[in-house]
Amino acid sequence: MLQLLNDEYYMQLAIQLAEGATGQTGINPVVGCVLVKEGRIVGMGAHLKRGTPHAEIHALQMAGEEAEGSTAYVTLEPCSHHGQTPPCSDRLIKEKVKRVVVGCSDPNPLVAGTGIAKLRNHGIEVDVGLLEKEARQLNEVFNKFIMTRRPFVTLKTASTLDGKIASRTGDSKWITNAQSRGYVHTLRHRNQAIMVGIGTVLSDDPLLTTRLDIPGLHPIRVIVDSDLRLPLDAQVVVDRSAETLVLTTAEADQTKRQELDAAGVTVLDCGAGPQVNLTRAMELLGEREISSILLEGGGRLNGSMLELGLIDKLLMFFAPKIVGGGSLAPDNFQFPGFELMKDAIHLERTLVKQFGEDICIAGYPLYRNEV
Amino acid sequence: MLQLLNDEYYMQLAIQLAEGATGQTGINPVVGCVLVKEGRIVGMGAHLKRGTPHAEIHALQMAGEEAEGSTAYVTLEPCSHHGQTPPCSDRLIKEKVKRVVVGCSDPNPLVAGTGIAKLRNHGIEVDVGLLEKEARQLNEVFNKFIMTRRPFVTLKTASTLDGKIASRTGDSKWITNAQSRGYVHTLRHRNQAIMVGIGTVLSDDPLLTTRLDIPGLHPIRVIVDSDLRLPLDAQVVVDRSAETLVLTTAEADQTKRQELDAAGVTVLDCGAGPQVNLTRAMELLGEREISSILLEGGGRLNGSMLELGLIDKLLMFFAPKIVGGGSLAPDNFQFPGFELMKDAIHLERTLVKQFGEDICIAGYPLYRNEV
Repeated sequence: MLQLLNDEYYMQLAIQLAEGATGQTGINPVVGCVLVKEGRIVGMGAHLKRGTPHAEIHALQMAGEEAEGSTAYVTLEPCSHHGQTPPCSDRLIKEKVKRVVVGCSDPNPLVAGTGIAKLRNHGIEVDVGLLEKEARQLNEVFNKFIMTRRPFVTLKTASTLDGKIASRTGDSKWITNAQSRGYVHTLRHRNQAIMVGIGTVLSDDPLLTTRLDIPGLHPIRVIVDSDLRLPLDAQVVVDRSAETLVLTTAEADQTKRQELDAAGVTVLDCGAGPQVNLTRAMELLGEREISSILLEGGGRLNGSMLELGLIDKLLMFFAPKIVGGGSLAPDNFQFPGFELMKDAIHLERTLVKQFGEDICIAGYPLYRNEV
Repeated sequence: MLQLLNDEYYMQLAIQLAEGATGQTGINPVVGCVLVKEGRIVGMGAHLKRGTPHAEIHALQMAGEEAEGSTAYVTLEPCSHHGQTPPCSDRLIKEKVKRVVVGCSDPNPLVAGTGIAKLRNHGIEVDVGLLEKEARQLNEVFNKFIMTRRPFVTLKTASTLDGKIASRTGDSKWITNAQSRGYVHTLRHRNQAIMVGIGTVLSDDPLLTTRLDIPGLHPIRVIVDSDLRLPLDAQVVVDRSAETLVLTTAEADQTKRQELDAAGVTVLDCGAGPQVNLTRAMELLGEREISSILLEGGGRLNGSMLELGLIDKLLMFFAPKIVGGGSLAPDNFQFPGFELMKDAIHLERTLVKQFGEDICIAGYPLYRNEV
C-alpha cells in the first residue's frame, strides 16, 4: 500500500530498522533512527549490540556533514546519561540537528523526559509520541526488564484445535506445519533464552537451538529439573553451541550437580525444594541479565508458569486438526484452574495470524491482581 | 472498496441476494438473479421459500417488458424441469432474454447442463462459471442434500483457548462474548434443525430457539436421548415455538414414549440400541426433509459425530481465556481419538474471523476415506 510522505513515513522506517534488530541487543532496547534533510534520507541507524553505538550515532555517522539542519526520527527518547557509550542527546546537539521526532519516551520514569528536555534546552524542536504504541511495543521486553529486572516470558504452544500436544500414544510429529515451525525458530533467535521442563528433554532429547535456512542466534538453554534427572549424554549437555542452565533446588543430588558442572552446565538453586521455585528462578535469570525467555514447556510447566503470573505473552499455534484422546492425550495446559469461568485468565490485545493452514493466536494475559 | 463495473459486479449482487435468503428455502437451494439492460438493473430476485417462485421469475416480473434483450445474472443454472413451479429456462426464453450468465451448474450431474443446453438451443448466449467457487459455496447444504439425502451438519463449539467448555466446577456462563453468541443465534436461523444431547438439556434446560433483536426462524429441535430421559417439563417440550424431535432406540421405554408423544414431541427410533445409531439418525432426518443441522453438542456427542464422519463443517469459537482444570473441566471433544498425529482429522479450507476479542475458526473436516 502506498504510504503518504509525512512524519509517519520516516518513523515507520525507523521502527522497521529497530524491529529488524530484535534479539540482537540483549538487555538493551532496540532503537531505530532515520535522519532526513531537504526531502532526502541522509542517515539511518539501529542499535545492533549491547556495548556498541546507539541508533542515533550510526545515523549521524552516515550523514556526516549533512546532519546539520536535519530532522531525526528516533523510536525511543535519546539517552542523556553516560552508559557504555556517551549520551546521544549531546551528540545530536553537537551535530546541529534541527528537529527530533521521538516515538516514545524512556520507559523508566526516573529517566523519562531528561533526554528530551536536554534537546529542547539547546533549542532543538522535539515532537514526542509519533506512532507511540508501535514504538513502545517494539520494546515490550526491555520495558519490563528495566523496571523489574525480571525476564519477559513468551509462552509458545503448538497444538491441535482440541488443545492436544500429542496423541493418546504420545505421538507429536508433526502437529504444526513447516511454516509455523520456521517461525518458532525465528522466535528462538529473538529471545535470549529458551526454557523447557526436564520431561521434554527426557522424551524428545531436543537440541533447542535456532535452525533456519540462514544462521540465527542460539538462545541460552534453561531446563527446569527439580531432581537433576538431566542425562549427561543429552544433546543440551553435549552440544556446546549454546550455554545450558539447569534450574534445580537446594535438595538436589550433589554428585550429579558436580557431574553437570564438569560437563559445562551451570546449575542454579531455586529455593529449598522439593520443586523448583519458578518465581525465584525468574529473579536468578534476571540477575544473569536474561531479559527474554521463550517458554516451550509441556502442559504442567505451562500451567504452573501461568498460575504464578510469570507469563507475559502467549503465542498459541493451532494446527487445523482434531486428534481426540480425552485425558490420555496431553493438553497445552495442565493445572488445577479456576472454579468459575469469570475467573479464567483473560488474554488482552489478541491478534490472529495464519501460517498456511495453521492459526496463531497471540495475546497478553491479564492477571487478576492487574484487573 | 470500489468495484469495477463488469459481469462480476452484477454476479456479486446476485450472490448477495441469494446469501441473504439462506435458511429460508428448506431443502431448496438459495438462488439470486439480477437482470441488466442497457447499463441499468431492470430486475432483481431471489428464491425465498420452497414452493414459491424461483429467483429468475421474481426478477423477470420486476422487469416486465424490460426483460426483452436483457442479460440475466443467475447464481445457479436455471432449472429445465417441472417441479413445484414451471421451468425457469422456458420463462427466460419466452421473455426473450438475450444473454444468461450462470454462477455454477446444477450440482446434480443428472440434471447439470440441461437448463443451459435448452437456453443455448433457443439462441441465448450463455456463459457459465462466473464466480463459480462463491456461487457453489452458497449452496453447500443443498449440494450435499441433493446428492445424498443426508443433512449437512455444522458443528459449533465455544470454548476457552485451552479447549474447555466449562470450568472444573461446571461453570460455563459465559465463555464467548455477546457478539459471538449473537452470531450463533444467526446460525440457528440459517439451519433447519438444531441438535444437542440429552446431557445439555438436563444440565441447562435450554430453549434452543433463535433469539435476536429482530425475529428469526426457529430451527427444529433434535435431542439425542438413548434412554428417553427428557423431562416432560423441559423447555424444549413445553415451548411450542418450534417442533421437537427426540432420537432414541427401539429399546426405549414405551410409556415415556407415549407421554412424549402426547406432549407433542416426535420420537424417532434410530437403531436397536442401546445407543442411538447416529448414522441412521441422519438418514431419518434426511427423510423428514431436514437438509441442515446445527450441532451444539457436548464433548461426547461432538466426538461421536466426528468419528462417524457425520460433521461437514466446523465453526469453533474461542474466547481469549485459559481456565485450566485438566480432566475435571470438560473438553470440546471427548472421544478415543487417534494413535498417530498424522491420522488426526484434518480441516481444510480454514478461515479465521474475529468477533470482538473472540476468535472463530471455520473449516471442513477431511475424513480418511476422502483423502
